[in-house]
Amino acid sequence: MLPVPLPDAVRAALLAPMVDQHCCGVRRDDTTRSGFEQLIGEGGTPAPPGTTHFDTPAGAAIRRWCAPVLGLEPHASPTVYLSRRAELGAAEVNRRLLRGAGVSAFLVDTGPDVPALLSPAEMGRLGSAAADEIVRLEQAEQDVAEAGLPAADYAGMLRDELAVRAARAAALKSVAAHRCGLGFDPSRPSRGSVIAAAGRRLADPKSRLDDPVLVRHLLWAAVDVARERGLPLQFHCGLSGGGLSGWGLSGGGLSGGALPGIGAGHLTDPALLTGFVRALAPLGVTVVLLHCYPYHRQAAHLAGVFPHVYVDAGPAIAHTAAGSAHVLRELLELVPFHKQMYGSGCHGAAELCFLAALCHRRGLARVLADRIAEGEWSPADAARIAHMIGSGNARRVYRL
Amino acid sequence: MLPVPLPDAVRAALLAPMVDQHCCGVRRDDTTRSGFEQLIGEGGTPAPPGTTHFDTPAGAAIRRWCAPVLGLEPHASPTVYLSRRAELGAAEVNRRLLRGAGVSAFLVDTGPDVPALLSPAEMGRLGSAAADEIVRLEQAEQDVAEAGLPAADYAGMLRDELAVRAARAAALKSVAAHRCGLGFDPSRPSRGSVIAAAGRRLADPKSRLDDPVLVRHLLWAAVDVARERGLPLQFHCGLSGGGLSGWGLSGGGLSGGALPGIGAGHLTDPALLTGFVRALAPLGVTVVLLHCYPYHRQAAHLAGVFPHVYVDAGPAIAHTAAGSAHVLRELLELVPFHKQMYGSGCHGAAELCFLAALCHRRGLARVLADRIAEGEWSPADAARIAHMIGSGNARRVYRL
Amino acid sequence: MLPVPLPDAVRAALLAPMVDQHCCGVRRDDTTRSGFEQLIGEGGTPAPPGTTHFDTPAGAAIRRWCAPVLGLEPHASPTVYLSRRAELGAAEVNRRLLRGAGVSAFLVDTGPDVPALLSPAEMGRLGSAAADEIVRLEQAEQDVAEAGLPAADYAGMLRDELAVRAARAAALKSVAAHRCGLGFDPSRPSRGSVIAAAGRRLADPKSRLDDPVLVRHLLWAAVDVARERGLPLQFHCGLSGGGLSGWGLSGGGLSGGALPGIGAGHLTDPALLTGFVRALAPLGVTVVLLHCYPYHRQAAHLAGVFPHVYVDAGPAIAHTAAGSAHVLRELLELVPFHKQMYGSGCHGAAELCFLAALCHRRGLARVLADRIAEGEWSPADAARIAHMIGSGNARRVYRL
Repeated sequence: MLPVPLPDAVRAALLAPMVDQHCCGVRRDDTTRSGFEQLIGEGGTPAPPGTTHFDTPAGAAIRRWCAPVLGLEPHASPTVYLSRRAELGAAEVNRRLLRGAGVSAFLVDTGPDVPALLSPAEMGRLGSAAADEIVRLEQAEQDVAEAGLPAADYAGMLRDELAVRAARAAALKSVAAHRCGLGFDPSRPSRGSVIAAAGRRLADPKSRLDDPVLVRHLLWAAVDVARERGLPLQFHCGLSGGGLSGWGLSGGGLSGGALPGIGAGHLTDPALLTGFVRALAPLGVTVVLLHCYPYHRQAAHLAGVFPHVYVDAGPAIAHTAAGSAHVLRELLELVPFHKQMYGSGCHGAAELCFLAALCHRRGLARVLADRIAEGEWSPADAARIAHMIGSGNARRVYRL
Repeated sequence: MLPVPLPDAVRAALLAPMVDQHCCGVRRDDTTRSGFEQLIGEGGTPAPPGTTHFDTPAGAAIRRWCAPVLGLEPHASPTVYLSRRAELGAAEVNRRLLRGAGVSAFLVDTGPDVPALLSPAEMGRLGSAAADEIVRLEQAEQDVAEAGLPAADYAGMLRDELAVRAARAAALKSVAAHRCGLGFDPSRPSRGSVIAAAGRRLADPKSRLDDPVLVRHLLWAAVDVARERGLPLQFHCGLSGGGLSGWGLSGGGLSGGALPGIGAGHLTDPALLTGFVRALAPLGVTVVLLHCYPYHRQAAHLAGVFPHVYVDAGPAIAHTAAGSAHVLRELLELVPFHKQMYGSGCHGAAELCFLAALCHRRGLARVLADRIAEGEWSPADAARIAHMIGSGNARRVYRL
Repeated sequence: MLPVPLPDAVRAALLAPMVDQHCCGVRRDDTTRSGFEQLIGEGGTPAPPGTTHFDTPAGAAIRRWCAPVLGLEPHASPTVYLSRRAELGAAEVNRRLLRGAGVSAFLVDTGPDVPALLSPAEMGRLGSAAADEIVRLEQAEQDVAEAGLPAADYAGMLRDELAVRAARAAALKSVAAHRCGLGFDPSRPSRGSVIAAAGRRLADPKSRLDDPVLVRHLLWAAVDVARERGLPLQFHCGLSGGGLSGWGLSGGGLSGGALPGIGAGHLTDPALLTGFVRALAPLGVTVVLLHCYPYHRQAAHLAGVFPHVYVDAGPAIAHTAAGSAHVLRELLELVPFHKQMYGSGCHGAAELCFLAALCHRRGLARVLADRIAEGEWSPADAARIAHMIGSGNARRVYRL
């Protein structure tokens, strides 16, 4: 599985079970070819006529690396792959791929509220791993908004709802990057402005939360809960489509065919979050920057500067696939080794969960082998670094 | 020409004639040393005293790779190179370099309205290739603005002028990135706001179009024409100087000595175009993001998310020269293989046209060789990918 | 010291003494472990409980490369390293590391006004090198603001103070990136607006300068002085923490424990400076963009487009350490060879000065070896390029 020879200790550290500190559930049911293509494409949209999402870095990697897990030759054609997938059935495919990821614990973002996705417990069972829930803030808010209450009760009910959900969770997660962007005013909004905004929101509760005042209010309510319960607060950062991030489109690629409602990418740069991150520093709330690509250097810098900030490379690993070693190399240019974690950011297709883990191990193996060969890091340090990134840091941050 | 051994099919696919899906004309006449330096520098400005634009990545590559095409040893000195260039004469130099690019079709942006530049037909003849025209939107607008008409007729005449030019063209191209930046309001401006802005514009018609209302109006007029005729709409994105992009300074480097009127680079990030791209999705208009460096990852993401978006690496290839393999590697991290095209973005000097093609083939050869050696892609897939990028995608998009 | 075999002339050019065109002083006194960790971390803050800043790229490189300079084995543990450091004493450690940097001239930014830092003369003496001062603009302004003068005298006294300091200096340096960001209005502010802003400033003179009007006024006053004396104007660009840049927090990491007051990173992109750079072009003032990471490609582009713009990779080299070759590779994609300089950007710890020089030479060695092996650059050109970057360009720009 590893592409280069490595000292035994480094090899063992890389192959040890990892903590997947952020993923979404994968589909429990069989899909059509079109449905599968939407799951693996970045946008959650079908490929244009005459093309296929198998002709992407992730698609090529599925044919190369997932095909053997299903008992096929490497580089199996899309048709052969999907036919074998159907033959085995979704449950068996999911079991093989999730187990093959070599993960000891999944932290599962239940934000995409879609019954077709496996629950955290099911992810754990199929993957032979522990599992915990991550509360998607915007989903909690949506449920509150749709409950039909007066604006004056909005803030209180939201606070209560977050507290209830947080009680069973390992972390809270925000997709503010794709609602109003990360350049929001970092201060807590006034009570009056929240009530006014809630009034507007509740007049159209089925709409998506994107009012900056309410996004900020939701974040500060989450901060209060995070402090009380010692939970980290995760932020999706970086470029995303519906399929890549599953950031709240009722399942993104799962709903099929809709154009991605993505915001402009430059608003997802984690550097924009600097003021909010600084405001949280004295409060003892850990911030985890997810994905971040192609702003992962900015994220690594924040993790280097602020003691309470952590990062992962998220779905960028599975989606850049053969190119992911280089993404990890850039992240490792600046990030403290005790600040990087592993997270697949997978969503919908178990293939992405498997690929993220495989590509993480393969890519990190290359970087570590280079560092050792150049005499930069000792094998003992390299093994220690692989362990910290793979599971040690996450066990500390999430108290697993 | 290729720097690494490759399976025969991959080699053949890389060496096959390519479609240069965006270039400008090259100079037909002999130049002085100072004139040549301005053509190959990024800014279209002379090198500071005591320095030379040959001391750049592109300059070093010209001495290395173009010198042998002129019958010189590799790494010929600038003096020897320019002396040999003068001896052969511009026509013979252009013939050798354009032919040496191995291109089967040039799509030539006639925006820099400079008689010293070869026409599309001349580019094709010298390069033994087919040739088609790309209509530069801002040039059409400039001609309309200077025609001395009342403001009430501006919109109608612009529409007519675009329609006439589009009738003989393969694509339309915008340099809005360097007029008002790509962060413009994506909606179609109101008729009233256009008439008011046209009034201001026509009071000073020789000025450069940079009013955001008129830039948007021009783009939406172009969208209407593109829909009618099934033409793709190209956007110059990414960092540019006069020499690098030829984006409308009446020839950029050709006019000599003027300081580049470039806008701040961050306004050229294609991520800023997300809203406009989304607005075009239901209209069936293909969008091609040109150049994009150093925002090529953002461009690759847009191509992955939106079915109607394509990208090329443009003049970044010739200008990064020996470093271009890495730029291609980053672009290939995320871009669907059916969405990347080849375009030299060359302008003024035939050397840049030759270098872009050479560096594209050499750089892609390295990436493909690595992918094959790592077992990531099969040789058959690698060949197929090289073909799609080199010509297949462009033939489909431009219906060549 | 060099990681790859190279032709003799290239090797000699890389090993020749360099000009460190921008650094700050290093501490003259012994530090505690906690104090040392703050010096080498990016943020100038302590590492979180249970972690250490030795677990960063720079920390690992200190154990690898600085340990032998202190007479230890490579990869010495942090405890062993710090114990040996204490045993030798700060003076001897500084002497070994500064001398080991192989620098013939230090240009020392005296902006962090902290007595514990070595003066330029002391840096030179310990490092066996010439030394010159760089005037930190914001420090001069702070001293003027605190002098207790009426607002009407502010501009005149600031001009006089800058002129006095410039008389003994090799360059002027701005940290506007971390005061109001680089996106400021490039025009010179009106006299009235300056007096009004000065009135507000002088009412609270101990505060940090961050009013955009006064930042612009300070820059334009610096431009006037720079023109008169032929001095370059340096800009800190790119991501920075207190420890990484020492950009004015009364010593950054030295003061210990305070949270870094960094501005959001996206405001430090040198592309934002385009308008100001263009305004300076006709004035004959050289602009030097320092550090720039991760916007070094944008900086390289500006250096390519504008004849009066230069760049270095600054503290990014020491902080990315084993990853710095890749950063240099990206910078070298586009930068003219006569426009790149070497600067360590070190601050506080002599280790960072040593590491920057070492990593610059090792990283550039790799790039040059690749270019030569690929036949892209001749060995003679590679040697010439190493010389230009290491010292030649700086000697020309600073007239050393």
